[in-house]
Amino acid sequence: MVSKNELKQLAQLGQKKFREQRGLFPVEGKKAITTFHQNGFEMNYFFSLETAQIGGFDATKIAVSDMKKLSNLSTPPNVWAAFSLPKPTHFALQNINIALDGIRNPGNLGTIIRLCDWFGISHLLCSLDTVDCFNPKVVQASMGSLAQVQLHYVDLLDAFDSYDLLPVGTDTNGKNIYDATISQNGVLVMGNEGQGISEKISAEIKENISIPVYGTPAAESLNVAMATGIILAEFSRRGRATQK
Amino acid sequence: MVSKNELKQLAQLGQKKFREQRGLFPVEGKKAITTFHQNGFEMNYFFSLETAQIGGFDATKIAVSDMKKLSNLSTPPNVWAAFSLPKPTHFALQNINIALDGIRNPGNLGTIIRLCDWFGISHLLCSLDTVDCFNPKVVQASMGSLAQVQLHYVDLLDAFDSYDLLPVGTDTNGKNIYDATISQNGVLVMGNEGQGISEKISAEIKENISIPVYGTPAAESLNVAMATGIILAEFSRRGRATQK
Repeated sequence: MVSKNELKQLAQLGQKKFREQRGLFPVEGKKAITTFHQNGFEMNYFFSLETAQIGGFDATKIAVSDMKKLSNLSTPPNVWAAFSLPKPTHFALQNINIALDGIRNPGNLGTIIRLCDWFGISHLLCSLDTVDCFNPKVVQASMGSLAQVQLHYVDLLDAFDSYDLLPVGTDTNGKNIYDATISQNGVLVMGNEGQGISEKISAEIKENISIPVYGTPAAESLNVAMATGIILAEFSRRGRATQK
Repeated sequence: MVSKNELKQLAQLGQKKFREQRGLFPVEGKKAITTFHQNGFEMNYFFSLETAQIGGFDATKIAVSDMKKLSNLSTPPNVWAAFSLPKPTHFALQNINIALDGIRNPGNLGTIIRLCDWFGISHLLCSLDTVDCFNPKVVQASMGSLAQVQLHYVDLLDAFDSYDLLPVGTDTNGKNIYDATISQNGVLVMGNEGQGISEKISAEIKENISIPVYGTPAAESLNVAMATGIILAEFSRRGRATQK
């Protein structure tokens, strides 16, 4: 059983303020919940429309009407859980270091987290104005990958200093990525969807790289998540080539 | 002036049945409308909240309430236009040939069209069950690129025969794309979001290629539009390398 008041409070976890107050974030759908559980996240609430069990935890059965209140999706899931927000950890240098500067679209952040997971990158730097990764739309778009990638919301300039990172910009007028090399302590900076990289960060960037364009496309640029994917694939290919 | 009845009919262009009946498709937003006009599409209706002109055409001013009825976006645009559906053309062989087999998500199709435009691919084969490219969500996601890329909805097997194309599958268990080569008359087949490539097409495929995975990601695969982008970038890189 769950009280109306408790449900109401849990439904508010869609908002960052309430996630931070309660120290909880919601995850919807069996696959994603299982992934977070298997990755050691602490499950505090677990609701289901039918009898359900994940990793030894029995779900509390609730009505469809209650599930609709809890859910942040247009089609409510069969199962819904709230996990404890993870404790902050330290950024660790990666084979390929990525910093997000003001990514605002939850779908883009989720897609980038999914990409990092695919390319074996488990730490990601995010500027303080990047959308919160525990936003339900980000969790949804990351397809469970958020359970395996740690995001660090920091002042990027401080982080570059602390880890002796050399920021490399990504834009449409930079050096062709296929001619560019990135030093061991390079960090690829992906800018905001509309504005690109912020002025503050731009001032620190010595070199910009870009994905070559073939023809004269209608759109001025690739979507930021797409650009991240193509760049990660290219630098992973090179890492693979040198490992051989 | 525009009659209530006319507005009602134009608002129905969000549905394929009505687009085909009227031979029209809607485009929203100044930039996209300008791109279609500049690419020679015939503009039949042009509405605006304020005085506006595109390529010598004056907009008919309408009220916000009417714009909301016409629009298929959550935030109605300032300008809305209906263009004539283009006359069917013939598929032309490309440097990199792509066939979509049952792509159903409008956002994915729009993103793939935008990618084709970026990588200079102006013809795209689509199975008959791929989502209609004049669906407003596809037009929106393509960011004007639909004006520059021609989609051919065909029985893919017939098309492979007609153009002597050798289908190459894309999945998660294929040959590493970095070790794979594609013959001049190869065609890369991108499968449905959930089901992958259909049985009918799979039977014709001699080789599958895949994007290597680094680590053990939570998601089983990359999103189909992302995979298309990474594959297009890689084969474009090689074309560029051989041209040099």
